[in-house]
Amino acid sequence: MEKASGARVVECVPNFSEGRDAKVVEAIAGAIAACGVRVLDVQRDADHNRCVVTFLGSPEACKRAALAGARVAVERIDMNRHQGAHPRVGAVDVIPLVPVSGITMEECVAHARELATALWSELRLPVYFYEEAATRPERRNLEDVRRGQYEGLREAVRSDPSRAPDVGEAALHPTAGAVVVGARAPLIAFNVNLGTSDLALAQRIAKGVRHSSGGFRYVKAMGVKLEDRRIVQVSMNLTNFRGTPIHRVFETIRNEAEAAGVSVVGSEIVGLVPMDALVDAARHFLRIENFAPEQVLERRLLEE
Amino acid sequence: MEKASGARVVECVPNFSEGRDAKVVEAIAGAIAACGVRVLDVQRDADHNRCVVTFLGSPEACKRAALAGARVAVERIDMNRHQGAHPRVGAVDVIPLVPVSGITMEECVAHARELATALWSELRLPVYFYEEAATRPERRNLEDVRRGQYEGLREAVRSDPSRAPDVGEAALHPTAGAVVVGARAPLIAFNVNLGTSDLALAQRIAKGVRHSSGGFRYVKAMGVKLEDRRIVQVSMNLTNFRGTPIHRVFETIRNEAEAAGVSVVGSEIVGLVPMDALVDAARHFLRIENFAPEQVLERRLLEE
Repeated sequence: MEKASGARVVECVPNFSEGRDAKVVEAIAGAIAACGVRVLDVQRDADHNRCVVTFLGSPEACKRAALAGARVAVERIDMNRHQGAHPRVGAVDVIPLVPVSGITMEECVAHARELATALWSELRLPVYFYEEAATRPERRNLEDVRRGQYEGLREAVRSDPSRAPDVGEAALHPTAGAVVVGARAPLIAFNVNLGTSDLALAQRIAKGVRHSSGGFRYVKAMGVKLEDRRIVQVSMNLTNFRGTPIHRVFETIRNEAEAAGVSVVGSEIVGLVPMDALVDAARHFLRIENFAPEQVLERRLLEE
Repeated sequence: MEKASGARVVECVPNFSEGRDAKVVEAIAGAIAACGVRVLDVQRDADHNRCVVTFLGSPEACKRAALAGARVAVERIDMNRHQGAHPRVGAVDVIPLVPVSGITMEECVAHARELATALWSELRLPVYFYEEAATRPERRNLEDVRRGQYEGLREAVRSDPSRAPDVGEAALHPTAGAVVVGARAPLIAFNVNLGTSDLALAQRIAKGVRHSSGGFRYVKAMGVKLEDRRIVQVSMNLTNFRGTPIHRVFETIRNEAEAAGVSVVGSEIVGLVPMDALVDAARHFLRIENFAPEQVLERRLLEE
């Protein structure tokens, strides 16, 4: 595996519009794996008729790998014959780049721009930018960019200037459609368990911490019941742990629960978490001053 | 760099009896670096006439690298002409193996045994085991093993069966002496700052947490003054963070300080710290249930 210099690590999670033909999915994943990245996961869903490949690597390797996967998708997937439950605008539908360590969001946005240029010049795929890479506010949300899906966008792009791609001509690729490229912070699925069966309390606390109802900028939250354990949970997605760190969310939930006479009985992280998110929590609680990420021993192994 | 399968990472910190001739030190470090390990640091001290090489790698790569460094030391260092302030028994004086991640202490001890066999069979260096690899209690402490140093041990080993090496014949190598091989937990230098200039309080808390006076098994501690900041500090070495985790020491110090009406104003980690030590602290304070080390994103990059 190629390793990033200075431990620059990017996660890339492209979605492709094929979830039924395992051979096509294997060809896409194989092309990606051959580019010096580490493939963590390949998920294929027949109902959605869609697959998702998750991989890590240097930004350069991730761009090569995303382009290689897109090339296979352009060759093997015909959007004019594609049906599936999940919204989509192209054979390679969306490519998010996620800064994991040693790299800023701004740098990831710059890499997204370069990737877009290559997707257009080499594969003739028009590109829309979304999330942190969006060129205008109304394109931040993926769902807004995908409005009308492949079939609708194919028509809209020819007549409606507001739907013109950010890179490439105002016409979709005849079989592969368009691709939405962007940069976003890593998602952390973080749940906090409360020592009560009072669902209303979990819902009230969820409402208090989530952005949509006045809480933290980078928190999505809801209250749920854990039937087996007869307790309730504040179930969350932390969409940017640098903006809203785990420990701040945890401590806020703990305070709110305690004010209602309820204890936090535990928490869970579902799936993957960047090292920095946990290191930041340790630094906070241990009150560590002047800590440099390079002090973590294993980080030295990630360096060139 | 060769990467350990399953992210098995060992740190190795051999000490060599040459700190004045930079060419010899470079030759040793070069031989080590050529074995597929990552050299973090090379320190050379003329007064001690000694150098220390710190490197990380898979256990297999670390054994190869330690052996390669020892081979150069045997060729280039003559203990009969060696003088220096630091105690020593051989050209390659001591080789500790430190389990960093994905590997147990027991496995490190087994690797220390294999390394010893190679040091004897290939270089005719007799080996003493120390710390976790010690074959008897009186050899756990390095200073006890090194008693009499090279000159004294050279005589003692021929006549005193209690000084016989663990591996090899009861005679030192004619120019390279003997080598002490062992396994030990990673050291963490952790200091906690108290919001007072009362040195006696720091000393009393240090006494309370350190092993030698009734405290935690794997803590060495003393109270010191930080003159510049007009505060005091509990300055510690944590010799085994799995046995005595950072957060337990921190919380104990915080409790003791608060009982005296004093706040913890901060802490510091000096030098390197294994990722697991901070992840464990985050898990504790966030009360994370069922967390697997493999959930840390960057760990995937360390795997084969």
